[in-house]
Amino acid sequence: MAPTDIEIAQAHTLRPIAEIGAKLGLGPDDLEPYGKYKAKIAPHVWERVRGAPDGHLILVTAITPTPAGEGKTTVTIGLGDALSQLGERTAICLREPSLGPVFGVKGGAAGGGYSQVVPMEDINLHFTGDFHAVSAAHNLLAAALDNHLHHGNALGIDPRAITWKRTVDMNDRALRQIVVGLGGKSGGVPREDGFLITPASEVMATLCLASDLEDLRERLGRIVVAYTTAGKPVRAADLKVHGAMAALLRDAVKPNLVQTLGGTPAFVHGGPFGNIAHGTNAIIATRLALKLADYVVTEAGFGADLGAEKFVNIVSRVAGFRPVVAVIVATVRALKLHGGKKLEELTQEDLPALARGIANLEKHIENVTRVYGLPAVVAINRFQSDTGAELDLLEGRVRNLGVPVAVVDVWARGGAGALNLARQVVALAQRVQSLPAGKAADPKGDGRKVRPPEGAAEGPGLEDAYPDGFPGGLRFTYELDEPIKAKIEKVAKQVYGAGSVAYSAQAERSIRRLERHELGNLPVCMAKTQYSLSDQPELLGRPEGFTLTVRDVVPSAGAGFVVAITGEILTMPGLPREPAAERIDIDRTGRITGLF
Amino acid sequence: MAPTDIEIAQAHTLRPIAEIGAKLGLGPDDLEPYGKYKAKIAPHVWERVRGAPDGHLILVTAITPTPAGEGKTTVTIGLGDALSQLGERTAICLREPSLGPVFGVKGGAAGGGYSQVVPMEDINLHFTGDFHAVSAAHNLLAAALDNHLHHGNALGIDPRAITWKRTVDMNDRALRQIVVGLGGKSGGVPREDGFLITPASEVMATLCLASDLEDLRERLGRIVVAYTTAGKPVRAADLKVHGAMAALLRDAVKPNLVQTLGGTPAFVHGGPFGNIAHGTNAIIATRLALKLADYVVTEAGFGADLGAEKFVNIVSRVAGFRPVVAVIVATVRALKLHGGKKLEELTQEDLPALARGIANLEKHIENVTRVYGLPAVVAINRFQSDTGAELDLLEGRVRNLGVPVAVVDVWARGGAGALNLARQVVALAQRVQSLPAGKAADPKGDGRKVRPPEGAAEGPGLEDAYPDGFPGGLRFTYELDEPIKAKIEKVAKQVYGAGSVAYSAQAERSIRRLERHELGNLPVCMAKTQYSLSDQPELLGRPEGFTLTVRDVVPSAGAGFVVAITGEILTMPGLPREPAAERIDIDRTGRITGLF
Repeated sequence: MAPTDIEIAQAHTLRPIAEIGAKLGLGPDDLEPYGKYKAKIAPHVWERVRGAPDGHLILVTAITPTPAGEGKTTVTIGLGDALSQLGERTAICLREPSLGPVFGVKGGAAGGGYSQVVPMEDINLHFTGDFHAVSAAHNLLAAALDNHLHHGNALGIDPRAITWKRTVDMNDRALRQIVVGLGGKSGGVPREDGFLITPASEVMATLCLASDLEDLRERLGRIVVAYTTAGKPVRAADLKVHGAMAALLRDAVKPNLVQTLGGTPAFVHGGPFGNIAHGTNAIIATRLALKLADYVVTEAGFGADLGAEKFVNIVSRVAGFRPVVAVIVATVRALKLHGGKKLEELTQEDLPALARGIANLEKHIENVTRVYGLPAVVAINRFQSDTGAELDLLEGRVRNLGVPVAVVDVWARGGAGALNLARQVVALAQRVQSLPAGKAADPKGDGRKVRPPEGAAEGPGLEDAYPDGFPGGLRFTYELDEPIKAKIEKVAKQVYGAGSVAYSAQAERSIRRLERHELGNLPVCMAKTQYSLSDQPELLGRPEGFTLTVRDVVPSAGAGFVVAITGEILTMPGLPREPAAERIDIDRTGRITGLF
Repeated sequence: MAPTDIEIAQAHTLRPIAEIGAKLGLGPDDLEPYGKYKAKIAPHVWERVRGAPDGHLILVTAITPTPAGEGKTTVTIGLGDALSQLGERTAICLREPSLGPVFGVKGGAAGGGYSQVVPMEDINLHFTGDFHAVSAAHNLLAAALDNHLHHGNALGIDPRAITWKRTVDMNDRALRQIVVGLGGKSGGVPREDGFLITPASEVMATLCLASDLEDLRERLGRIVVAYTTAGKPVRAADLKVHGAMAALLRDAVKPNLVQTLGGTPAFVHGGPFGNIAHGTNAIIATRLALKLADYVVTEAGFGADLGAEKFVNIVSRVAGFRPVVAVIVATVRALKLHGGKKLEELTQEDLPALARGIANLEKHIENVTRVYGLPAVVAINRFQSDTGAELDLLEGRVRNLGVPVAVVDVWARGGAGALNLARQVVALAQRVQSLPAGKAADPKGDGRKVRPPEGAAEGPGLEDAYPDGFPGGLRFTYELDEPIKAKIEKVAKQVYGAGSVAYSAQAERSIRRLERHELGNLPVCMAKTQYSLSDQPELLGRPEGFTLTVRDVVPSAGAGFVVAITGEILTMPGLPREPAAERIDIDRTGRITGLF
């Protein structure tokens, strides 16, 4: 029987975190250790390296996710290890897992097989406490808000217009909709409320988009928690707790360093949702990684329509990131599902279904290359049931588009299973670098990166890639000063393939209110199902011409975006009938079992 | 202006935690560092030292607390530093602070002035994540319970007989009484619920009473969360999540090591409430400290009627601890309050009020020496407003009882302000050791501790102490196999001075149910106001002959006791009109201000 993820991770001998830090030029004083294999990076490191040139940023994204699983995190880790094997100074940037899915269905979320970040038990459970710090800061604000109501409501908050919920890092459906403040006068003011899971907290999104502690404190102060009876936004700063919230996040704002099974340094830092938030790890971590490594591989949430779009229009805009290459992860299994095959029949070869499903991949390739302006390479994450004919069909179709493609086998082989992909990534990065100065070129122009990658000669020639024109570099889909509706429509039509956008009466009111309160100039964070390019989860493949319906638009003023909500977005998951928690256990020696 | 606690702490240069560990014979591999100044002790250390003889355990307790403040934690730390200055190998054991009071009224809870444990900001905020781990384990059990109801309630749980609430480490009165499970079928089963603050969680009490990880897992499984419609207890093990709860507590079970301003090693580990739980730090930490140090100074919650009683009858019983000396902390200010003086007039000299208030101290001395069987020394924690006549009166009255007494000035002078107290403690410990073999004598009989303490000759002669007979060593107030009511009545009459005990109808029913379900043989944890020896907070001084009313008796089967509830016990505090959170802030360098 194949070993499980946790068995593979536990059989591995980790290197002391100081050794991992040394690979990035970090000394012992640069690390704040959390046990022997985890560390936070001391804030003085940024002051030392901030003037250094940036390494190459590689964005890993995917086709529209399906229940079949795509393995995006696994590919991200495998690619990082492969780049390390090629001799490149590499760092990986990932999100931290939430406890909710760990105890729910999913099990762990730190890669899989021989492409994992370790120590996996720690990363999946508590890690360095960042999620708990976010929860505490979030709930302090909630307590201060209800306390303000209880002590006379001097700000004139409308108790029916409170938008700030509470949070817990747990799948707990019974907390989705609740009534608080019961039990008479001493119990506060009764009102409807609810809990979000911590990754859905705006504090998490804010942490991940802040550039430093000072910026974080300011952003936290801007969070809108309610409206007054006169309709004026009430912010965390009005409740005077943003300083204490920032104090609670003093350590959470420092990037966490761990290692992959291949010994590649990995920054695992922050974990915002990919729907109501932007779904990528903390900017502070990626920014630091770019100063310390020549290649930084990071992952965006869900498919390229969601995570990558937000990485372009929200994250890269605020952080000044310029990814040089995007890797689009696809699987034969998932594409067959997009082509109409049933979930339980995915192990059967089905070339017609695959051929139909490839339309989904094609749309994501178009988005990455033509809408976002980034050269793409497709990583086919191989599963045992894939047949040679299926792989040939898929590879051939991608190659016909002029897009480089590599089959990877990262679960079973780790970095060795992604060497071909890594060579293509390096070749594309080199080609980007050799372009005339522009957004995509080396922003420092110091030529530091121009050195032939080891083993590049063995890689596939990319001379014939992009025959219709090499992508010109990162392009925003909209400008910030456009009206909210214009921004939404550009994303909906250009990225999703929608024919039109409809707005509920509530959305119309909200948009007017946001623009009245000068919140109209923020980027739009689209909250849309991840299971379809449209807002209807059942529309697989490549739907076109549909109407995207916006139900509401709400501010995340601390994070610095407005959220356009389409469909039903669940911000507090439930546990399944037999939750993963029932099989998770620990023995007397402290060995944990049952994490996947 | 006198510097604040946080200013004093921040001006101090901390020693690396490895240096602090070395004072206890711990090497680098014995420590799991959390940053540079905090560490958890690796579990292998216990295996190495478990056969070593125990050091002397010194229990710090106090008079009945008042709003004037007694400074028990400060005296504990100052005494530890003084013992270190006398050349004794000393460790301190304290509870971890809860975030709730930090953001509420109290500010920090890591000592004060020049008697603090540091880094104080870390200890007050998140520390090593133990409280968050307890919260997560607690809430996992709550989520599993509601999930069980949602998926068909196979165990037949009576939704009206669910006793397991949720928890958050925040003062949040609006969560005291709530309704969960609203919003239709997808939101679970509607029912009344509420939140406790984390120190009130039974998981916290269980963690602090467990002897190791395996024992913890078993105890967690025994937690009673509800009753079936047939009245049968439903336990965490029935929901099959005790293993996952233990996995969440894998690191929380390891003792935390920090330092005092005087460089004394301090184990700050666990923080259960002192009313509905037992109110002392984790047994695992104290037990380890006793193996590593010659003197271990620990603190019990509230007055000697509560914390010390529970330390004797619950903690020492399960852990096998044998404290050799108890320090009773008293202040002139607080005793004047007990003597009828008003809070706002405490800075005025008032010998008659003080003389009356000393009755409170006398009762605590009697409890410690005659009921618990421990030699006591009274530490008068000096305040600036104390007059010489007041101090003389108080000292004289205590000396007349034959009880050693020392004036301490630990806030302003640190360990140097408690040298006299330390010398008396050492002298008493020596005298205990020279007693004929018995409970109080060196349990190993290896004479390891018999060595004259440095500077002992300078200390006051204790030849005339305890003229009516030296306390004979730790004595339990009741035996476990007595009926619940007999146990309650022994504590109420012997310790509190009650004339009788009354039981509500609910309490009568609960006691019958507990004894029916074989939960009658557990120790009784008294939940009583800390502000009076009686169950009526307004009865200061030394009330006698009152009737103690028991409202209910509930099981904490995981912790291993039943809780007898008297009066109104608040398990979720609220924030004041101007919470401390409003003045807590952080600057761009990460310096935190506004913690006390």
